[in-house]
Amino acid sequence: CLLALGMSIPDPGRREELIKLEASMRVGGNVRLSPEEKLLDARLSKLMQEEVAKEDFPPALHFFKARPLIRSSPIYSLLQKMPKGAALHVHDFAMVDVEWLVRNVTYRPHCYMCYTDDGSLRFFFSSGPPKPLTQCSPWTLLEKLRAKMVNVTDLDNSLISSMTLWTQEDPEVVYPSQDVVWKKFEQAFLATLGLVSYAPVFKDYYHESLSQFYRDNVMYVEVRALLTQTYELDGSTHDRAWSMKTYQETTRQFVEEHPDFFGARIIYTVHRGINASVLILVVKEAMKLQVDFPETMAGFDLVGREDTGWPLWYFREALSLPASQGFKLPYFFHAGETDQEGAQVDQNMLDALLFNTSRIGHGFSVLRHPVAKNLSRLNGVPLEVCPISNQVLKLVTDLRNHPAAVLMSEGHPLVISSDDPSMFGASGLSDDFYEAFVGFGGPSNNLGSLKELAMNSIRYSSLPPNLQEKAMALWQTKWNTFVTENL
Amino acid sequence: CLLALGMSIPDPGRREELIKLEASMRVGGNVRLSPEEKLLDARLSKLMQEEVAKEDFPPALHFFKARPLIRSSPIYSLLQKMPKGAALHVHDFAMVDVEWLVRNVTYRPHCYMCYTDDGSLRFFFSSGPPKPLTQCSPWTLLEKLRAKMVNVTDLDNSLISSMTLWTQEDPEVVYPSQDVVWKKFEQAFLATLGLVSYAPVFKDYYHESLSQFYRDNVMYVEVRALLTQTYELDGSTHDRAWSMKTYQETTRQFVEEHPDFFGARIIYTVHRGINASVLILVVKEAMKLQVDFPETMAGFDLVGREDTGWPLWYFREALSLPASQGFKLPYFFHAGETDQEGAQVDQNMLDALLFNTSRIGHGFSVLRHPVAKNLSRLNGVPLEVCPISNQVLKLVTDLRNHPAAVLMSEGHPLVISSDDPSMFGASGLSDDFYEAFVGFGGPSNNLGSLKELAMNSIRYSSLPPNLQEKAMALWQTKWNTFVTENL
Ligand SMILES: [Zn+2]
Ligand SMILES: [Zn+2]
Repeated sequence: CLLALGMSIPDPGRREELIKLEASMRVGGNVRLSPEEKLLDARLSKLMQEEVAKEDFPPALHFFKARPLIRSSPIYSLLQKMPKGAALHVHDFAMVDVEWLVRNVTYRPHCYMCYTDDGSLRFFFSSGPPKPLTQCSPWTLLEKLRAKMVNVTDLDNSLISSMTLWTQEDPEVVYPSQDVVWKKFEQAFLATLGLVSYAPVFKDYYHESLSQFYRDNVMYVEVRALLTQTYELDGSTHDRAWSMKTYQETTRQFVEEHPDFFGARIIYTVHRGINASVLILVVKEAMKLQVDFPETMAGFDLVGREDTGWPLWYFREALSLPASQGFKLPYFFHAGETDQEGAQVDQNMLDALLFNTSRIGHGFSVLRHPVAKNLSRLNGVPLEVCPISNQVLKLVTDLRNHPAAVLMSEGHPLVISSDDPSMFGASGLSDDFYEAFVGFGGPSNNLGSLKELAMNSIRYSSLPPNLQEKAMALWQTKWNTFVTENL
Repeated sequence: CLLALGMSIPDPGRREELIKLEASMRVGGNVRLSPEEKLLDARLSKLMQEEVAKEDFPPALHFFKARPLIRSSPIYSLLQKMPKGAALHVHDFAMVDVEWLVRNVTYRPHCYMCYTDDGSLRFFFSSGPPKPLTQCSPWTLLEKLRAKMVNVTDLDNSLISSMTLWTQEDPEVVYPSQDVVWKKFEQAFLATLGLVSYAPVFKDYYHESLSQFYRDNVMYVEVRALLTQTYELDGSTHDRAWSMKTYQETTRQFVEEHPDFFGARIIYTVHRGINASVLILVVKEAMKLQVDFPETMAGFDLVGREDTGWPLWYFREALSLPASQGFKLPYFFHAGETDQEGAQVDQNMLDALLFNTSRIGHGFSVLRHPVAKNLSRLNGVPLEVCPISNQVLKLVTDLRNHPAAVLMSEGHPLVISSDDPSMFGASGLSDDFYEAFVGFGGPSNNLGSLKELAMNSIRYSSLPPNLQEKAMALWQTKWNTFVTENL
């Protein structure tokens, strides 16, 4: 047995074997590299040595401080060009750079704005002045406001910062606690919501989402979408089916425009703060949408801060509904995005697995739950790891201490995603891939790790087997080109 | 099989079973509590609920900020009274509150002091003025300096802060990086060294070390000691055997004075910066000491910052020496006190195990090394976990992310210790026990966890079986009294 000790003089050969055994256990540890891939790997290994020798190690820093270092790193440039496969954990209204929202969307006609009492903003498109909001200043037409100003840059910057957590200031000072950072997160979401739920913007925003991920060399996305009511200038509204249909049509259109983009699917999500009885209605609607949009709808999830929401077990009746009717509604539960060990929500990961979830969103607490961890591994239920999100939302400081560094070393099923890149000042998947590649193992990682992470994202997608095969073939072509072009 | 999924409607009974299975895997998860212990456990559980409900969660904060909260917590009071067993990872010159060094030692006659160019202090006892030090101000007799001052409190405070990392200022600002905090650590060590290597102080300091741990309800310690040269007022010096003999005699004397204290043993340590050829001589001396002081000497270790020292494998010739001669020199290697994954020193944990180490000092990186982790578990090689040390030396910020939180949940062999309490402003073992109990699991822990941690410290000590049995019996008596008195 390789794992018995006893001798006191170590045999160098056995030592080598154990080191190799450990390397083979990693994510990507068994990936065989072609001669060409080996050349690229050698280059990558040299870049990694340079990266860890730098005085400031980016994964140890808050992303807001690390971003300039990351963006100027040759590893980042390579990761950006790399075909990363799929983004499996991203949210509908946090995929597009906020700058686009301000420079493009808020410059459209009929855009009103008001200031809330607690210093956030709200937006609304309307042909005439909208109904006043409580705890908000009177509505102002942005067009008029800008016309009165000598310098609109300051205004636009304040609009930008109302819709993102990103800041140039010291993030530790601006966001001293999880409560503060989540509060700002929710405010930024509400500011964004008024813009993106205007029906024409809704469509454009989604199209721009796909564009930005496509430009970051992501070929397929699964978007967690709230399917909130959208509205028109005259105040008329559209229902969830309209949103789903718009997602479907826009996806088709985008694939037509970009034949090497594989597509997108939607995971219908609802806030975990709602009542258990309301969730029964929501799950029923999810089942209907699943029937009506089999191509586009991937499944169902609950969103919002776990620590302050209901635990999954509270919703057990509603969540059991589909199976009790013999209906297959795939689940993609957020779970374990908490550091409150032993609290009620701390069972969410186990419950997600018991409800047969297809993947686990985050699973940050997985290491403290050996039974849930074993279930996830044995049943091949991958974790969607979003390093920057967990850091900005203050679950971890130095990303080398992120649980996924351990999961990587053990070859646990996982994918890398970006959650809400616009909120964090990240872009597509590349920033998160950088943190994972450099932070979760550094020199212990190699090109094989990246290859397996990219392949995982297709393997663990909700696509049916025949489409997975097609997607994998498309990805392989892109990968081969990437390798050849970057030797 | 309990670990197969598949059904979509979870069976509540099976859910309960899995939750219980996970609870049984924890450190202490299989400890049966007596009716009396159950009463205390219920009280403890209530205190824990109150502790986690507080706005500021101490284990999430830097210990320098958390200490007042910890010290005023009823859990801390209980932990202080609790018989904690043994302290298995503490260093010779960092066990006594620095205040004692200043108020007691520096007020003794013949104490000289000088200021180094980089703002640290050096001390020396001498009948006449000592030889000048390079890069240091001229020596001043402290007695004279104090006589000239109106208010000596400021001076004494500056003396205190020269010998500890503890500060009232913001530790993140004072110690922005590992390099800075280690530099200060080494300076504080050098400041202390001049005082404690004065032979009469050496003896008193060790006696006071035992007193302070005894008062914290620790009954046995294993001290990692450098056995540096000690000196007398006339400049004459003593060798390592003198130090070892003094440790032995002082321990015996202390046990005579305190019959319910079990004793102490010494792990001879040397700095990992020395040359491989020098280590051969050191190991030979260690073997001689082991023969001459079988009762007191526990074994051998290498100390100092791992990232900047030689890896263990560099010393393989010297470390193989005892076994190659059929001689048993027990090892207690520091290993894995690093976050530099993939660096050369990152193999230290595996190498420590291959050299048949009896315990691992820290093993902070153990989770990223599944093979080393399995070896440690299967061979019952415990980790000496020092939470506050790892936090102050900047391996981890929020202690809930400390790897030992995971090890606790998996029932990995481990003990809790305090490394260099005087450097961190900690006292005995209670502060570290607080961090471990509240931070590594919180409400998932119970009295059984504490009981197993205390018993582990005896079980994993270097004591031979017959003495372990005696120590365990003594501990059990103390434990029973503790339980009865704190219902
Ligand atoms: Zn999410
Ligand atoms: Zn130590």
